Amino acid sequence: MARVFNFSAGPAVLPEPVLQRAAEEMLEWHGSGMSVMEMSHRGKQFVEIASRAEQTLRDLLQVPDNYRVLFLQGGASGMFAAAPLNLLRGGRVADYVNTGAWSKKAIAEAKKYCDVNVAAASPEGRLTIPPQAEWKLSEQPAYLHYTPNETISGVEFHWVPQVDVPLVVDMSSTILSRPINVADYGMIYAGAQKNIGPAGITVVIVRDDLLGDAMPQTPAVWDFKAQADADSMLNTPPTYAWYIAGLVFEWIREHGGLTAMGERNRRKADTLYQAIDQSDFYRNPVDPDCRSWMNVPFILADSELDKTFLAEATEAGLQTLAGHRSVGGMRASLYNAMPQEGVDALVSFMQDFARRHG
Amino acid sequence: MARVFNFSAGPAVLPEPVLQRAAEEMLEWHGSGMSVMEMSHRGKQFVEIASRAEQTLRDLLQVPDNYRVLFLQGGASGMFAAAPLNLLRGGRVADYVNTGAWSKKAIAEAKKYCDVNVAAASPEGRLTIPPQAEWKLSEQPAYLHYTPNETISGVEFHWVPQVDVPLVVDMSSTILSRPINVADYGMIYAGAQKNIGPAGITVVIVRDDLLGDAMPQTPAVWDFKAQADADSMLNTPPTYAWYIAGLVFEWIREHGGLTAMGERNRRKADTLYQAIDQSDFYRNPVDPDCRSWMNVPFILADSELDKTFLAEATEAGLQTLAGHRSVGGMRASLYNAMPQEGVDALVSFMQDFARRHG
Repeated sequence: MARVFNFSAGPAVLPEPVLQRAAEEMLEWHGSGMSVMEMSHRGKQFVEIASRAEQTLRDLLQVPDNYRVLFLQGGASGMFAAAPLNLLRGGRVADYVNTGAWSKKAIAEAKKYCDVNVAAASPEGRLTIPPQAEWKLSEQPAYLHYTPNETISGVEFHWVPQVDVPLVVDMSSTILSRPINVADYGMIYAGAQKNIGPAGITVVIVRDDLLGDAMPQTPAVWDFKAQADADSMLNTPPTYAWYIAGLVFEWIREHGGLTAMGERNRRKADTLYQAIDQSDFYRNPVDPDCRSWMNVPFILADSELDKTFLAEATEAGLQTLAGHRSVGGMRASLYNAMPQEGVDALVSFMQDFARRHG
Repeated sequence: MARVFNFSAGPAVLPEPVLQRAAEEMLEWHGSGMSVMEMSHRGKQFVEIASRAEQTLRDLLQVPDNYRVLFLQGGASGMFAAAPLNLLRGGRVADYVNTGAWSKKAIAEAKKYCDVNVAAASPEGRLTIPPQAEWKLSEQPAYLHYTPNETISGVEFHWVPQVDVPLVVDMSSTILSRPINVADYGMIYAGAQKNIGPAGITVVIVRDDLLGDAMPQTPAVWDFKAQADADSMLNTPPTYAWYIAGLVFEWIREHGGLTAMGERNRRKADTLYQAIDQSDFYRNPVDPDCRSWMNVPFILADSELDKTFLAEATEAGLQTLAGHRSVGGMRASLYNAMPQEGVDALVSFMQDFARRHG
């Protein structure tokens, strides 16, 4: 068996020790006589697995007691609907900041349920974030939504907006990559398939005073209050994905928690951006102030070499480097489970490729 | 390692060869250098896994070409909302048949989106299905919804209603247990965690002429037309659960398909119902015409013995036999992956228990 370095934007590389443990426990979990996949979600064993995963996540993120942690289905795209359905709380308007493709999807979905004021948007054709001084907030928005990290374009906020209303954030591709202050936010949500675990489970962290006023047409499975009251088991949760997420949380803790993750991730990103910036062959199109630690897009001086680059990279064990189909070029995603060695190998390959084709 | 006989109603027992293969392939799938859990859903390898799973399911159920097969998130509880959102098609009224707890939940959810006419309901305190001659259908319902198998009470339709409108059915606990005629239905939906695979993926089979007229407030991830057009990848699907479902479908095919499953399941159910009926110690409260092949509830002559029964059964390797917390008593779920040996072992245990405590 030869595992590759997998730079997929998501579903993405997972820690190998997590996969090993999952394989070992697949037929029988801890003397239970069954796989976690076969356990009733109401049984003592799965309830223990689920609550331990939640507690580890709470410890990692230092989630304050007045926040509820939910494990739901639907992905971030589902939460694009669930956020306004739950958090408008009788309001009619929500403010959104548009910094890229995922912001746009969140806005389109929110428009089904409320008036959206686009308080700010990245200027056409520029990969940057407008400074908050330029934002045009509405009078009484129910919340302000933004996308801390745009997975496709690699545009990331390295600051937290200061506003008087709850911040609602899609942290799918940046959660757990470094410490954050959960109390800065009203609601954090994240699809699991980057830094948390397998696709198909969605983490929601929401301040409890925002709950209890969902719109009448809110689907029951996305009613945050009802799910919070039921410990995310109003209906059958995605139990196996929850279990794997718990193993990933433990792996993060064993490897120094979010401070250590942040240091590792900063170093990995620095390594790759430096290699790109020092080369005339590669270019990263993002404003240096807003460069993502998690998703590093880059283009080749000659796009006719893209296919050759991808084919040779794959051959060298460096996989899933194609940029999103909407933008082309390359993209290397450097989530927690990508080791420094993977980035070093990528940089060596890039330098060698540039020498041969430059 | 000693695997037990797991009678859980869901998540439930899975075929051991499926778990073995999943364990073997966990770190690397077919020379790909990565786990299925780590694959981009847009990559060639996962697309192959996904489309093969769909094709195997289509083959097993002989799904006609004018039906779309979707793999979504949200569970049957999510589909309680998604069904009216997608299938009202401008209509205001839908007919529902209430035969138990899951019917009631489907009705409560549908009321958020339309007028529900309860066309028929099981008489209070009786576990039976009212004959269709007694149903009071509305004038122009958009569809008629019923629950072919009530997982909690073990009440199952052994016939298909004859109506002029599309039948919409929650087949979570009966799908793949025997052959059906898909063309009888407008929409079939099923949470996976009984006969399909892990919790967290939901199969929808829907006639394509019913698509394309979803209500404006339908969440994008549950817009059946949009998901059909995107091969269920409008957003990141629950990839690993999809893969496991594919392995389960292959296991069913290798074991003779749905005809063989139906014969095995009928025999298992007959074995258990006969043992119950021949005993004064156990009783199944369901009308014999509507007894479920999949979920067999039974009560002990003396409910004070329930705890002892469960403790001794667990000790004997017969697990998860407690009835649903809303009804108590016992329930043995006999899904496809439960072998005849498990039922035989349960019956032996029950006879022995009755001798010792009767």
